[in-house]
Parts: sequence; structure tokens; C-alpha cells
Amino acid sequence: MESGFHDHHSSDTRMVLLTDSEQVRRLSRIRAALGRQAEAMLVSDNANVYYLCGRVFAGYVYVPADPALKPLYFVRRPNHLAGEQVVMIRKPEEIPAKLHERGLDVPSSLALELGALSYSAAQRLMKVFTGSQFTDATPVLRHARSVKTEFEIEKLKASGRKQTMIYNRIPKLYREGMTDVELQIEIERALRLEGCLGQFRVSGDDMELFMGNVLTGDNADNPSPYDFAMGGAGLDPSIPVGANGTMIQPGKPVMVDVNGNFTGYMTDMTRCYCAGRPDDKAVRANECSRRICAELADMGRPGAEAKSLYERARAIAAEEGLEANFMGFHSHAGFVGHGVGIEVNELPVIAPRSRDLLEAGNVIALEPKFVLPGIGAVGIENTYVVRPDGPMECITGAREEITDLV
Amino acid sequence: MESGFHDHHSSDTRMVLLTDSEQVRRLSRIRAALGRQAEAMLVSDNANVYYLCGRVFAGYVYVPADPALKPLYFVRRPNHLAGEQVVMIRKPEEIPAKLHERGLDVPSSLALELGALSYSAAQRLMKVFTGSQFTDATPVLRHARSVKTEFEIEKLKASGRKQTMIYNRIPKLYREGMTDVELQIEIERALRLEGCLGQFRVSGDDMELFMGNVLTGDNADNPSPYDFAMGGAGLDPSIPVGANGTMIQPGKPVMVDVNGNFTGYMTDMTRCYCAGRPDDKAVRANECSRRICAELADMGRPGAEAKSLYERARAIAAEEGLEANFMGFHSHAGFVGHGVGIEVNELPVIAPRSRDLLEAGNVIALEPKFVLPGIGAVGIENTYVVRPDGPMECITGAREEITDLV
Repeated sequence: MESGFHDHHSSDTRMVLLTDSEQVRRLSRIRAALGRQAEAMLVSDNANVYYLCGRVFAGYVYVPADPALKPLYFVRRPNHLAGEQVVMIRKPEEIPAKLHERGLDVPSSLALELGALSYSAAQRLMKVFTGSQFTDATPVLRHARSVKTEFEIEKLKASGRKQTMIYNRIPKLYREGMTDVELQIEIERALRLEGCLGQFRVSGDDMELFMGNVLTGDNADNPSPYDFAMGGAGLDPSIPVGANGTMIQPGKPVMVDVNGNFTGYMTDMTRCYCAGRPDDKAVRANECSRRICAELADMGRPGAEAKSLYERARAIAAEEGLEANFMGFHSHAGFVGHGVGIEVNELPVIAPRSRDLLEAGNVIALEPKFVLPGIGAVGIENTYVVRPDGPMECITGAREEITDLV
Repeated sequence: MESGFHDHHSSDTRMVLLTDSEQVRRLSRIRAALGRQAEAMLVSDNANVYYLCGRVFAGYVYVPADPALKPLYFVRRPNHLAGEQVVMIRKPEEIPAKLHERGLDVPSSLALELGALSYSAAQRLMKVFTGSQFTDATPVLRHARSVKTEFEIEKLKASGRKQTMIYNRIPKLYREGMTDVELQIEIERALRLEGCLGQFRVSGDDMELFMGNVLTGDNADNPSPYDFAMGGAGLDPSIPVGANGTMIQPGKPVMVDVNGNFTGYMTDMTRCYCAGRPDDKAVRANECSRRICAELADMGRPGAEAKSLYERARAIAAEEGLEANFMGFHSHAGFVGHGVGIEVNELPVIAPRSRDLLEAGNVIALEPKFVLPGIGAVGIENTYVVRPDGPMECITGAREEITDLV
């Protein structure tokens, strides 16, 4: 397929690294919704800026709803970007005068990222555009980004291939006597050497996590304040999630859910490992997780209700006598899947009260997981693409059985 | 000294992990400023919640300005926290009724974290507290946190000792033919095995970075959109900062500025390394950086103006003929130091237009760095504690000369 990125090197000075046609595809999706609510949109959140330009910069992308008008790029930093539509500024207060210089009026209505900007930053922009009406750009951008272009799907697939390669290597990274953290550190290193960027972007304040989550034994049932499918106490109360230094014991499953960001777009995958033979209950719960993924993948077609996928997952867990263990034991996560892409928590959300309907181009991580007291956390997670016809396409390919570490 | 934390294990259910006296020290600093602007403060930002409780949870800390009233903890997650002042809630709309149940009125004026909350989240809280006047809690919290307690300084020193230990080991991690990224990955692993939590918290949207920055050769002069002292192009335009895969060349300095968060409180340290003998210019610039640190450490006493420290740093760079290279070459950072603690960008800011005055208990990273075209980035960074008398105390102790990698 056509690449959506210009060929570029790491210090490329072109403002927009997306090809024109790729950028137009993204802009038209946004403009269709924007036109109904405002004359223009001003974007500064890093994830949204990356979506619109194929690079991150400090400043603002000004997107007129009118498709005849090109976006303008008001850049604070870096100072080497070039292009006809680039306007260097020191502060947002300069924007109205710069619009006038280009023969443009200050918009009578402007969409701002009210879900991402701090209150102070939004107030400042509202003063800059005194006289404009303000609407919220966040839902428009979140919805547009939830439907990936074919080029974005190629980036996701590339991440999925690399992540799969590392997951297949996990048994080789294990040594007897390791703790959960020690195994995680070796996986982190292997991911990084394969090109993992480390950082993964999260929308909102409800999650903090470093490189991923490796859970074994009772730690899996330690509740976390964050909005993840599984918890874990973590190493320190300042970051209370994930591995806590538990020794990996023979027969106890180890759940690995680590960073799949190799391309700016991340896949999300979870697999379980075990030193020696796992408990039969663990094997059954893992098979139940696989069954849920398979059935949901088949249901996941354009128009399907996200909440019906969740209800089906819960029903299967109940059929298999695992309802009490579904998505936690002492504490339960309220969803079984979520969109992924530039950020780890995109739309749609596969949850009981979700109003999302699936669309072709959605990329969704499904993670039906179980906590079994005395055993640990079990289950798989795959990332899927919703296709116009047929079931969702899985793009995370490591083997799904509980894999022997030794 | 007395520990400021209760002894605790990783799944401790006590709401507040700080000792009473440590929490009171922190609260009194906040209440002194809060009393002048509002009846109460509502805090939900993770860094601020950690500061007030010694742990992170999802929810709100309600701090009445009146010291006779204890804080209340409105907790959404996790579901296992216990204590007299804990009130479980599902959403912030429940808070006013819960206050009434405890015989408390809704405050007539309330300080909210307007610099940290999203506009949407702040608006939601403003509706919950209809009838209250709102003020900004962010400056109060930032200023309170900039003056560390002795217990916080102990946490910082513990991070500094561990970070120093790893820096001293860097020559052993180097192998000929490595790229900047490959060396960084081995340093990341060594840090993590020594207990580094990986995640470091950043205030605001102006920075994203994974584990730190290793720069060699011309990459040091690649500008970044982020508000760091040095740039680098990074591996991918989605995270444009830091190492970009440049091969480490004999005689070219390698600048290492990596994560010092071992305790929830992070130190910031930079050192330079070189495979073989570095260029004389690099040695001179590194010595200039050391001289700036030493002179500023001596100036850094309570009452000193942050901006005079910056001006002195720039003047020393000029004396040594390095003004054009100071804090970058094609692009320049606008500061030479910054507070550190729970977040990497705390107060005070050592910059030309800073109005900050130093106070005893400030913890400040000074990082006078130089970019030498054709050579790379050179300079050191240390973390210092401002003491009531005498010069600042350095808590990052790796040797400051350019260290041979081979």
C-alpha cells in the first residue's frame, strides 16, 4: 500500500510528515463533525498533533472547518520547521494578529480540546479568542481517531509483529529464581532492543504505568487506583500498580502485558507463562479467555454494540463458572476491551454502559482476564481491527496457551 | 531522623501512609497560603495526592483551611482503603451530600487545581459546588511542594545515592560499536535492577520522555519540541527527543541524563563519558559547567534570586567564550536549573525572567550544558538542597570529569 508518511530522517524539517492524501483523509473525518459545531478547531495536545501532522511540536494546529482552507501551524518549538503554512509564535496571544495577516478572520466559533487542556490553558485561549463561541473538540478528535486509516492500521500491524516476536522469546528470558520485576526488566530490555519506544501515551489522568504489567501470584489481586484491567501493588506507593517483587513460583502463572509501541501506534497483547505445569483451573480460565476473544472477534462487525460484546463476555465467563473471577476478584475492572492507537485508551470502550457502536477501522484490544485466588491472574489479550465484512482481524499473534517458561 | 512514612507493605490498606507529624508539616504549609484565598481545597492530581497522603488513589483529598478540621478522603479506587476520614464515592457529585452527613457545609470558596485539571473536569467540579467561589490551588501546591521537609530530602538523598551507584557503573555497561540507544538500554536495565521505578512524573504537557536522554555527536543539536535543557531527534517523530541511534564514536562525548526515581522522589544528574580521549574543547566546556555548578551552589542561599543564578551562569559561559554554545547551539533552552521532587519540573525555575527567590528546603537541579558543533553535548547536572546557612548541598555524587568508557 501507499505509505502515509513522507520518507523522512530524524531531523527532517518539513512541518507535516504525513503525505497530503493521508492528511486529507484524517482532516475530512474531523471536518465532517467540526462543520456542525464550529468554524475552526485549535489543537495542541501531543497525541492529536501527532495524528494531524505525523510529528509532535509545541504549538497549535488551526483547522478551519472549510475544506478549501488549509490548516495553519502556529509553532513555538522546535525552531527549525519549515513550510508555507508554518507561523512561528512565542505565545498564543499572537494568533489573532497572525490570522489577520493571512487575510483570515478570528472564527466566530472555535472548538478547543476541553478534555485535554488544563482549565488554566483553556481560559487563556478563551481570552485570546474573545468574542468567539467555544465548543469541545475532544469528542470530535476522539471519534475521528477511533476509525483508523489503512496506513495507521499498517503501523499497528508493524507494532503487533514486533511485539509478537518478543513475546515468543519470553521463555528464553526467564531464569529460575527470578522475581516478577526481574523478568519484566529482561522483557523491557528485549522490547527496547527491538525498537520499542518505551513511552506509551495515555489519555487523561486515570493511568500511570511504566512499560507494562507483569503479575504473578497473589499480587494480581492487589487493587490499583488506576483504570487498568488488572492491578498489582507495584514496588512503591508512589506508583501503585504492577509487579511488586514476588518470586515466580513453579506452577503459578505469570501474566505479561507489556508495551507494544514500536511505531507511534501501539498494540496491546497479554499472554500467560508458567514455570512448569499450571493448575488445571488456570488452564480452564485461560481457555475461557480464548473462547471469549474468539466469540467477540466474530461479533465485532460494523454496527455492533460495544455493550453487547461486554455482555457476551460476561455471559461466557458465567457459563464457565468464572463470573466471580472475571476482570478481578476483590476488585473488578468495569470493561473488557478498549480502542488502541496513538494512546492506550482510545474509543470504542467495551463496557456495560458504553454507547459506542463498532465501525470499520476501529482497532480494539480485548482482554478478558480472570483472577483466581491462590493461583494468580490468567487470560489473554489481543488487538483486533474491525473490518467492513467478516470477523475482526487479530494483529497480535503470539501463541495463546499458557506457555512453559522452562 | 524520624521516618515520615509508616512502616508499610505493598498492599497496606491505611489511607495515609505518612506519619501524622509529617502530614501536618505538609498541611500547615498549604493551609497558611490557602487560608488567605479559600475555605477549602480539593485535590485530585496524582502528584499532589501523593504529596498529601504518601500514596496515590483515584478520588479527591478535601483539605479545609481550618487546621482544627481533618482532611477527608473521597475515594473512587482502590476499594480497600480504610480510615475514619475515608468516604467511598462513585463520582464527585456525591461529595456535597457526604459533607453534610459529616456536619460540614459546602465551602463558600474552594481552591481547585486549575493548572492540572482538564477544563471539562474543572467545569464538572464547579457544577458540583454550585454557589462556591473558585480559586486556583495549583500555585499554592506548587509553592508548598517546592520547600521539602527533612523526610522528603532523605527520600531524595536515597534516590541520589542509587543513581550515583549506577552512573559509576556506566563504563562497565559500554561495549565498542554500541549506539546511543544501545548504551541507554543497558543503563535503563541497570537502573531498574537497582530499584528505579522507571516512571517519572512531569507537570504539564510540555515534556514527554522515556527513562532519560543519552546524546552523542550531532544529534545533541537536533532541536526538540519539549522543554528540556537538551534535545535530540529521538527514534521516531511520535516522540521526538533523545537518542536517535547514532553510533558512539571514539573521542566523541556521550552525555547521560537518565531517570533517578528510586523512591517516589527523583534526583536529576547528568555526566559525560567518552570512548578514548575527548577533544580539548569538550574538556574545557565540561570544566566550565563544573565551575558554573560550583559558583551557583555557593550563591544558592535562602533569599537569593533565581534569575541572578541564571545570569551568573550565562556570564561565566561568556567569560569562557562559550556563550553561543550555552544551553544549545541552533536552539537554546531558556533556563539553567529547576526544582525536582515528586515531579521533574518543580519550582523554583532558574531562568532569566523567574521571580522565584530561593528558600531553605528547595531542591534544585542545575544543568549548565553546552552544545559544541562537530563534537556534541557536554556538561554536568547535579541536584542540590538549599540549606538555611552555607552553600547548597549536592546530593548527586558521581565523578564530574568526562569519564573514559574504555
